[in-house]
Amino acid sequence: MPTTASSSRIPSRTPARRDLAQAPLLVAARGGRPSRLPVWFMRQAGRSLPEYRALREGVPMLKSCFDPEMLAEITVQPVRRHGVDGAVLYSDIVVPLYAAGVDIDIVPGTGPVVASPVRTAQDVAALPSLHPEQVSAVADGVRLLVDRLGETPLIGFAGAPFTLASYLIEGGPSRTYEHTKALMHSDPELWHALAGKLADLALAFLRVQLDAGADAVQLFDSWAGALTLREYREFVLPHSAKVFAGIEDYGVPRIHFGVGTGELLTALRDAGADVVGVDWRIPLDEAVRRLTAAGEPAPAVQGNLDPALLGASWPVIEAEVRRIAAEGRAAAGHIFNLGHGVLPGTDPAVLTRVVDLVHELEP
Amino acid sequence: MPTTASSSRIPSRTPARRDLAQAPLLVAARGGRPSRLPVWFMRQAGRSLPEYRALREGVPMLKSCFDPEMLAEITVQPVRRHGVDGAVLYSDIVVPLYAAGVDIDIVPGTGPVVASPVRTAQDVAALPSLHPEQVSAVADGVRLLVDRLGETPLIGFAGAPFTLASYLIEGGPSRTYEHTKALMHSDPELWHALAGKLADLALAFLRVQLDAGADAVQLFDSWAGALTLREYREFVLPHSAKVFAGIEDYGVPRIHFGVGTGELLTALRDAGADVVGVDWRIPLDEAVRRLTAAGEPAPAVQGNLDPALLGASWPVIEAEVRRIAAEGRAAAGHIFNLGHGVLPGTDPAVLTRVVDLVHELEP
Repeated sequence: MPTTASSSRIPSRTPARRDLAQAPLLVAARGGRPSRLPVWFMRQAGRSLPEYRALREGVPMLKSCFDPEMLAEITVQPVRRHGVDGAVLYSDIVVPLYAAGVDIDIVPGTGPVVASPVRTAQDVAALPSLHPEQVSAVADGVRLLVDRLGETPLIGFAGAPFTLASYLIEGGPSRTYEHTKALMHSDPELWHALAGKLADLALAFLRVQLDAGADAVQLFDSWAGALTLREYREFVLPHSAKVFAGIEDYGVPRIHFGVGTGELLTALRDAGADVVGVDWRIPLDEAVRRLTAAGEPAPAVQGNLDPALLGASWPVIEAEVRRIAAEGRAAAGHIFNLGHGVLPGTDPAVLTRVVDLVHELEP
Repeated sequence: MPTTASSSRIPSRTPARRDLAQAPLLVAARGGRPSRLPVWFMRQAGRSLPEYRALREGVPMLKSCFDPEMLAEITVQPVRRHGVDGAVLYSDIVVPLYAAGVDIDIVPGTGPVVASPVRTAQDVAALPSLHPEQVSAVADGVRLLVDRLGETPLIGFAGAPFTLASYLIEGGPSRTYEHTKALMHSDPELWHALAGKLADLALAFLRVQLDAGADAVQLFDSWAGALTLREYREFVLPHSAKVFAGIEDYGVPRIHFGVGTGELLTALRDAGADVVGVDWRIPLDEAVRRLTAAGEPAPAVQGNLDPALLGASWPVIEAEVRRIAAEGRAAAGHIFNLGHGVLPGTDPAVLTRVVDLVHELEP
């Protein structure tokens, strides 16, 4: 059911899930030793690529996310250029909110802006659910991708309930999350009602992607690092856990990521993640130490090159990549990635060079 | 030598340092048990107070920082209103840069903006030094304060070399510090030259405040939490250590603070701090555990109520204050504070209530 790209050759029904059992990214995600160290980059599909900027010329962000042909092409671009081991669905964490009918836009240079912040019981009650047909364009794009990606796994994604809630409550990006935290603590019942609805929304969005053939998922709780461990466990974990539990039946690897979450790693894992994403602030071997401190088995981890360092000289980057790969061997499986998204000004040639180097290293 | 407030009654010479040996803030900072649990708030002098907004009406930020009478009055306002145990000099971390002749302004809603970012050897060489007479207005303000504050200690302050460098290199506030980190790693010699000059600048600014009678100082490395421990120790610690060492002869407590520095606490202490500021992300008893992990004596700490929670209901705030005071007893001394600055929308009545509650608690 293509909604905007009627000329696309979209497979008409859900394909059987591809058998990519030997794909390095999926092997590492399951805690195995892959044939090579897998690497992809958060935000690899996007602003750093000239071919992306050309394709997006004049097309608003949220329009591009609902054009199956365009979102598929943008998703493939970094795979084609860099030879990364995973394609991450080109989308945005507010896509399911927008699709469900929330009045939200992505303002260039600012980020998501919500017309009416959600702060009262009435606001929460009025928050719509997501029906799969509202994101059928995304499903169509995923089907195109499954058809085009060959042996490269497709990572679906959604924003986690806390991060989605923070945009809705604050009305846009925030450095303080003051309204979100105040609501969470002062009216826990209302908070849990909101976060529960957002968990359902994220879950519905991920199931659409998985039904259409995505091979793994990443749940982005980008701003969870603003919370204490206590807050995370009480107010956030149950809702993110609902999302992860709700896709367990697909049997695909589930990656969980947030920035500045060194204090929250065990809780991110306890929410039901198979792979814990780590930003650059702590070494991966230290992350593994924290994740196994209570005697748990060694986890799979993803990370953690500081995206800001992609602007440094090559010898600096090379040393960092080698260090991170070495530290990652402490984990059951390691997916090489950045510690946050690719910055818009990044030279794409540097990303390609990082991929080539990672592929030379011992997995 | 008043520069703008000629009608002010400014003591004409440096007063002898006041004897405030029993002031709770100074006792706690030295690791003793004060008569009551001392409390002050970062950014207490500023935007949350209507009397501040009235006084600043039509006066640009950087002008107000060079008006002795105005900066003294703004510094006293929160002491008068809340009964806090310390006054923190009303100033800004870019004040010494501006005074030295750097083309920098504070743009409302944005923050410091630098006309020409500092990124080359020429830029660094051209960076001026600070001469004490360039901040004589601040010294005059400090002398007024020493005269007016009675038994309340005055906390002087300066921005730390890394945070100052980040503004100069990025050209303004940043979320990524990409140019700063790239320069630091790619041209360490240039980085150290810049950070060394900024250490001299911060040191000169603090010595002016101490010569005029400040009773303690806080070095703000607000954004150091964006760095790894390795980066901090190699690129930042030597320069902040130079600042702390350079004021050791005054014998006043030295507080060191940055946001999101849970991974850096030992390094912040090792730079020469007597008191380590902690944000809300880790409990104070956990901070003390980290600071004593290698057998070091228990430190004095400052913190760590999340400023965002001042917008929650009073029972939430009360429970947080009691928890933090209890956790702070693990330290040799505890100065109650927020985990970052007062947010502009904070109800000042809530701050007063927090002070009253803290003063009821066992120190």
